[in-house]
Amino acid sequence: MTSETPETRLESDSLGEIAVPAARYWGAQTQRSLQNFRIGEERMPPALIHALGLQKLAAARVNERLGALPGDLAGAIQQAAREVADGRLDAEFPLVVWQTGSGTQTNMNANEVIAGRANEILAGRRGGKSPVHPNDHVNRGQSSNDSFPTAMAIAAATEMAQGTLPRLRHLAEGLAAKAQAFRAVVKIGRTHLMDATPLTLGNEFSGYAEQAARGVRRLEAALPALLELAQGGTAVGTGLNAEPGFAEAFATEVAGLTGLPFVTAPNKFEALAAHDAIVEASGALNTVAASLMKIANDLRLLGSGPRCGIGEIRLPANEPGSSIMPGKVNPTQCEALTMVCAQVMGNHTTITVAGASGQFELNVFKPVLIYSLLQSARLIGDAAQSFQDNCVAGIEADEARIAELLHGSLMLVTALNPHIGYDKAAEVAKKAHKEGTTLKAAAVALGHVSAEDFDRWVRPEAMLGPRR
Amino acid sequence: MTSETPETRLESDSLGEIAVPAARYWGAQTQRSLQNFRIGEERMPPALIHALGLQKLAAARVNERLGALPGDLAGAIQQAAREVADGRLDAEFPLVVWQTGSGTQTNMNANEVIAGRANEILAGRRGGKSPVHPNDHVNRGQSSNDSFPTAMAIAAATEMAQGTLPRLRHLAEGLAAKAQAFRAVVKIGRTHLMDATPLTLGNEFSGYAEQAARGVRRLEAALPALLELAQGGTAVGTGLNAEPGFAEAFATEVAGLTGLPFVTAPNKFEALAAHDAIVEASGALNTVAASLMKIANDLRLLGSGPRCGIGEIRLPANEPGSSIMPGKVNPTQCEALTMVCAQVMGNHTTITVAGASGQFELNVFKPVLIYSLLQSARLIGDAAQSFQDNCVAGIEADEARIAELLHGSLMLVTALNPHIGYDKAAEVAKKAHKEGTTLKAAAVALGHVSAEDFDRWVRPEAMLGPRR
Amino acid sequence: MTSETPETRLESDSLGEIAVPAARYWGAQTQRSLQNFRIGEERMPPALIHALGLQKLAAARVNERLGALPGDLAGAIQQAAREVADGRLDAEFPLVVWQTGSGTQTNMNANEVIAGRANEILAGRRGGKSPVHPNDHVNRGQSSNDSFPTAMAIAAATEMAQGTLPRLRHLAEGLAAKAQAFRAVVKIGRTHLMDATPLTLGNEFSGYAEQAARGVRRLEAALPALLELAQGGTAVGTGLNAEPGFAEAFATEVAGLTGLPFVTAPNKFEALAAHDAIVEASGALNTVAASLMKIANDLRLLGSGPRCGIGEIRLPANEPGSSIMPGKVNPTQCEALTMVCAQVMGNHTTITVAGASGQFELNVFKPVLIYSLLQSARLIGDAAQSFQDNCVAGIEADEARIAELLHGSLMLVTALNPHIGYDKAAEVAKKAHKEGTTLKAAAVALGHVSAEDFDRWVRPEAMLGPRR
Amino acid sequence: MTSETPETRLESDSLGEIAVPAARYWGAQTQRSLQNFRIGEERMPPALIHALGLQKLAAARVNERLGALPGDLAGAIQQAAREVADGRLDAEFPLVVWQTGSGTQTNMNANEVIAGRANEILAGRRGGKSPVHPNDHVNRGQSSNDSFPTAMAIAAATEMAQGTLPRLRHLAEGLAAKAQAFRAVVKIGRTHLMDATPLTLGNEFSGYAEQAARGVRRLEAALPALLELAQGGTAVGTGLNAEPGFAEAFATEVAGLTGLPFVTAPNKFEALAAHDAIVEASGALNTVAASLMKIANDLRLLGSGPRCGIGEIRLPANEPGSSIMPGKVNPTQCEALTMVCAQVMGNHTTITVAGASGQFELNVFKPVLIYSLLQSARLIGDAAQSFQDNCVAGIEADEARIAELLHGSLMLVTALNPHIGYDKAAEVAKKAHKEGTTLKAAAVALGHVSAEDFDRWVRPEAMLGPRR
Repeated sequence: MTSETPETRLESDSLGEIAVPAARYWGAQTQRSLQNFRIGEERMPPALIHALGLQKLAAARVNERLGALPGDLAGAIQQAAREVADGRLDAEFPLVVWQTGSGTQTNMNANEVIAGRANEILAGRRGGKSPVHPNDHVNRGQSSNDSFPTAMAIAAATEMAQGTLPRLRHLAEGLAAKAQAFRAVVKIGRTHLMDATPLTLGNEFSGYAEQAARGVRRLEAALPALLELAQGGTAVGTGLNAEPGFAEAFATEVAGLTGLPFVTAPNKFEALAAHDAIVEASGALNTVAASLMKIANDLRLLGSGPRCGIGEIRLPANEPGSSIMPGKVNPTQCEALTMVCAQVMGNHTTITVAGASGQFELNVFKPVLIYSLLQSARLIGDAAQSFQDNCVAGIEADEARIAELLHGSLMLVTALNPHIGYDKAAEVAKKAHKEGTTLKAAAVALGHVSAEDFDRWVRPEAMLGPRR
Repeated sequence: MTSETPETRLESDSLGEIAVPAARYWGAQTQRSLQNFRIGEERMPPALIHALGLQKLAAARVNERLGALPGDLAGAIQQAAREVADGRLDAEFPLVVWQTGSGTQTNMNANEVIAGRANEILAGRRGGKSPVHPNDHVNRGQSSNDSFPTAMAIAAATEMAQGTLPRLRHLAEGLAAKAQAFRAVVKIGRTHLMDATPLTLGNEFSGYAEQAARGVRRLEAALPALLELAQGGTAVGTGLNAEPGFAEAFATEVAGLTGLPFVTAPNKFEALAAHDAIVEASGALNTVAASLMKIANDLRLLGSGPRCGIGEIRLPANEPGSSIMPGKVNPTQCEALTMVCAQVMGNHTTITVAGASGQFELNVFKPVLIYSLLQSARLIGDAAQSFQDNCVAGIEADEARIAELLHGSLMLVTALNPHIGYDKAAEVAKKAHKEGTTLKAAAVALGHVSAEDFDRWVRPEAMLGPRR
Repeated sequence: MTSETPETRLESDSLGEIAVPAARYWGAQTQRSLQNFRIGEERMPPALIHALGLQKLAAARVNERLGALPGDLAGAIQQAAREVADGRLDAEFPLVVWQTGSGTQTNMNANEVIAGRANEILAGRRGGKSPVHPNDHVNRGQSSNDSFPTAMAIAAATEMAQGTLPRLRHLAEGLAAKAQAFRAVVKIGRTHLMDATPLTLGNEFSGYAEQAARGVRRLEAALPALLELAQGGTAVGTGLNAEPGFAEAFATEVAGLTGLPFVTAPNKFEALAAHDAIVEASGALNTVAASLMKIANDLRLLGSGPRCGIGEIRLPANEPGSSIMPGKVNPTQCEALTMVCAQVMGNHTTITVAGASGQFELNVFKPVLIYSLLQSARLIGDAAQSFQDNCVAGIEADEARIAELLHGSLMLVTALNPHIGYDKAAEVAKKAHKEGTTLKAAAVALGHVSAEDFDRWVRPEAMLGPRR
Repeated sequence: MTSETPETRLESDSLGEIAVPAARYWGAQTQRSLQNFRIGEERMPPALIHALGLQKLAAARVNERLGALPGDLAGAIQQAAREVADGRLDAEFPLVVWQTGSGTQTNMNANEVIAGRANEILAGRRGGKSPVHPNDHVNRGQSSNDSFPTAMAIAAATEMAQGTLPRLRHLAEGLAAKAQAFRAVVKIGRTHLMDATPLTLGNEFSGYAEQAARGVRRLEAALPALLELAQGGTAVGTGLNAEPGFAEAFATEVAGLTGLPFVTAPNKFEALAAHDAIVEASGALNTVAASLMKIANDLRLLGSGPRCGIGEIRLPANEPGSSIMPGKVNPTQCEALTMVCAQVMGNHTTITVAGASGQFELNVFKPVLIYSLLQSARLIGDAAQSFQDNCVAGIEADEARIAELLHGSLMLVTALNPHIGYDKAAEVAKKAHKEGTTLKAAAVALGHVSAEDFDRWVRPEAMLGPRR
């Protein structure tokens, strides 16, 4: 039979009593989850736990104001919830992602820890259900089914707004600065990886900058749906047992606490049963990942060499590149970024599958949804910042190499199209390629153009736009 | 050696001569592609071919206006391009999706067919390069690298705006109508598939309607990026060999031809080298697929039975369901829709991989990108319409069954929380469950509540919102 | 009211009468499906229809032998089923993939067409249910639930065994031949896209050949599970209404008809309710796609140029590459192949989602599962063949270019590690890089090695293996 | 300028000096990576670090034996490497997954920590490069490019063989035991979620057991490719700077250390440049995920209720299910498992993208490949075990509920097919459904069968197989 020891105290729930480590604030349900879900090591993300602290804080404030919670209990709950929100009780949240799909166990973990801490504040005894009860007071007028998605929204919107977005903007600005710096560096273009007509290195970077800037706008567009809170729906979306006006007052409270314009979701049934806003946000991050994959791949190709590759740009040398090849320097920031992109694409598959799997009044893939989304948002932000600061900012053009490649290219022949037509121009290029000569030599030899006309018509710096 | 026969004529390109079926309008490059890419049977989608017809038509009009194309040639080109756009020459486009990644072969197919038809109009002889030349005239001031993505954008935006969106709106309206019709049907809620507190059938459908309506807004939000045209960038984005002003005039022309507000892309380097707009649109369709998967799954679960399932609603019986079980009727529209959703999710993976794989000035996964996106857009639209017309519209509530389930549920006990607290309420539910009795009997037996209070407090119709 | 016209005849099922085009063999259920599922244009793949013909043929033979079908009816059914198997009645199968998830409608399409044709043979009147009834005779002892997955298995195994596998073997052999041909061509290695220590071009191709050969083994390993037939499980896996011994005799019959070692599935419940064998086979194709993506990407990078890329190999010039840039030749076979790989990866997501979505006794994503798997198998096979024949076979090494790059490389310094240690070797490489000199000059200048020792130690052809 | 402090010491690499915390064993390159890759919080998995310890241990043993490493240095290296392998130095491996794609930084982390610890053993001073040098001694005859994939293989094969496989076998056996226990419980079947012909509950579980058992075989089949070691390929696959015979001796050594039959990879170029074995293993895990998703979904549907669902089985009540609904018990193990499956599916996308992205002699997505694969393997194993122990083992059949549903079903009518034909049987079912009566009443009323024949022919317990 279960009994109290010096190291444990007994806590109870509707399934009976269970021993809990005496030093811990948590209660019976947290303890059961610990024992029943020994799966992996991925703990519920701290950002979600902190958001849950804010959620409990806001709920206690509103309940107090609406008269649904006595002031003394409310005060202690608010103090304890603030400690959770501030990360001071992170060690009290040991549960893994792989638990019940509603996040009930983590919501109860928060209810129990806050009650346990509030009871310590009020009565000097850690844990327990009195005077503050985890369900009746901390969870007052709430359900895991609205509280957990609310915490998901707070965590996701905060990470996106304060982490991902400013860091991606930083990269977009860095790329735009390079586009400006390289605006006069004329170089050979490449399509299908094959030599093509010229453009400037600035043109290339302007494409990257455009991709990143649009990525910023894509994330911004995904934000409003994350700012809608499920709170007030309680168990199934009807709001049973919540106070009238609770949902709206709660959203206002959270907006105040976070500085982000949270609102109450217009349809609580959708807000509990679906997580389309998460799927949408992940889709935006997935698009950004596709963009960044392209940019990083281009930069490492452009910087390939130093002697046997393309070598038109030089990436910063941040660390020795090889444990066996002395002097080797590798495009490591590109590699970290592209790995992040692959991870984000995979997370998007996870989120799509999980998001599509709601049933009736509840989607029970909530923990994996928020785990994956927060990971994607964090990684894109961090990797964008690292990529900008440790790679893009230090990129230099190797102008000598660029000029050498440009002037040997056969695709300058395209400038002859309007003068001698596509078929004859092709003949010139093929002859030069076959014989290893210059375009000019081939063109003149074929009699399609005079040397003077060739020099007048074929000028890379005049091939950068529609004007002839 | 290749020579002309009664069944063939000789056409040539920069690689030499090749025999083409005499009856066909196409030329050497189309013929080579036919022979070099015997891969699968997925032809380039007709919607893309028609868009390419519009693209050539608009280009010829603008080139004529800008003086880059003589009037007689321009006129014949425009007539032939219009025939392509109208689908009258579909049989002349035999190439598969699995060709060059720039779509050059299909662009040349269009150039050759239009030149071949224009030459027939002007000179009475099908095919050839004179008086109208596929490259110098039909493709005047263009490259596959800007023409093909332009056709992609025209095809995708048109399908989304005129196919997917109105059909999804139709479904959203249908679901909203059902939400209204079922607004008074009180039923048991289910979370984790387990009995929960009540709501109305209208509440459930309002969640579906909200998902669909937001899906409409998600697709609308993805549309503007599809309305930006790459045309004018020519080979690498610089616009070499295009006339000044061509890009802007072209976009205006296409807007007029389609009735959709197409504009020229602000950065042509991005427009050729990346296809983030396609990835983004596919992401929106993927979110819609996740929504529809949830809705369709719910409806078939709600309609399961007729005697051994949930059976709260009746889906229309459109066809016999089984080749062996007489009288069986199945939720076939739900099944078609969920298969479509799985396809759209897979297409999204394809599009993400393809979209991330651009290199330097060109993304060479263009054909698979547009093939997959058009399929997703078409299928979501068609399936939404079919689902609404053949399933949702005919759904009826089985009110007797709904009432029977509602009144047996133990989760009505939640209404007691504010009166006797969570722990005692749990005791009541567990006792009733264990003994197979009613909640009321258990509650009174435990002495937690009087029979009168029970009847006053536990009323499903009073459990539909926060007000007590 | 429905009535017969010159163009139509009336057919009936358990839902009543319906008009069917008089010229068609199909009956009421096919007609209903046509009207109820106007979704997309993807018809059920011919390979599946032909397999369904074989399935009906084998079933009729076994039923006749077991006395469950009179000889005259059986004979006519077998004749008609053979016509379906041979593709002579393809036009009679108009239904799309997006129908009921059990494939019942296509199974009934086959039952109706075979009955309709058998009735024509026996009674001179196309269609109808007498003397041959679609359900009671053609579908005798069968259900869609076992027949359709059986046809799926027949189609998939046949495509894999007779299409995909030999074509992928062809590519593996082609790559191995190149590995052999290029075995003495010493070239610079590249890791992280950066210059590394040397290897031979044959080494590189041996890696590709190994990948392809392992791909062959992966597909071979996935085949046995596809050779297990669900037939005999009937509606839910129990075999109700099938003759005793039917399942085993049927599998033997199909093995005889196809020449492939089909067996009856050991557990029919799994065979109907899950499609893990399809998910597994798609996983094998997905692995092959990852391999081929790598190979194709490498080859186009190695062939990039002709003047501004790596240019170590020359890919065959099969067609003009650009509609605007004269003389351009592109790695189009690589592009077709990588697009196929992206498609196969996406199909794998579709198949994973669909395969995971079975419920109780049936997975109702069968049509999309087989549609996607057949597409993947076909595309991998065709693309492998095309890639080998139109690209790999014609690849040539540009030995001059290879030698030029090799001898300029700084990574030859690695040969000094065992002699002067990593740190000094790094110093040499960095000095040479910074000053643009040769390794030898830098090494001697630093005093780390004499010119003679350098020449003795740093020989690319001696850096190809562990022996020093 | 950087200088030593009480808290730091200076370490150096080819880029210069850098301050390292004095208490740490690591050196300059680890420190640089820490500063350059502030991306996320996902540290390189401990299983990989331990495998890297084994890899260094085995390499030092073989190098010593081959005379490439002096005995005293070798001994200290082996002692330090063993400490890494045993997890005693986990805190010395602070680097994240998002670093260089070859894992060089983590390989150097291991080289530096082992050298730093060996130097402490030999010379009493932590860190540094003397007498034991991280590259020249610890990394002797190795490169990150062969060492890191070798550690990947060791970690992955060990996790699969000793974690995932036994745990999945445990579940397969548990499901088989339930199939046996429930072999006589006749129940209604369900196809399309609609009532179908009967089977036993044991039949259903036999399908699950079959899926799990095949999952075991799928993972077993993926193991051999993971047992092939890249070691000996060094930088690009040629084996430059390794001792002759090193690769084979090394594999034997690792086999001895782990008890798993590791061998040296037959083609080292493939082993460094591709990670198809990882993609293949992930594909096997993905198939298992699809299987387990189906099983978990079925079990929660079968256990749905307790009063308003299907309720044919009872899942164990492990914890209170709701923070608001008293007495609620939820299928939480099913939810944890299905979330794991979604995660594994997403990881598979990540791994596919990463695996397809190798270039030339190296795939530089190694860290994310092993991070994702180890997570999938661990989660599938842990979740299978938890699911078996906390859910499957305790499942009970609710025989009363099962019987009630069975006898009301209309699909028992299928037993009449062989007697009265499909069409008349359908008529009976439709009449009973429409009028809410029994099948028998409807059949007799229609005159299709006598009451006696009905009772003789329609017996659920006789509908469980082909025999009539």
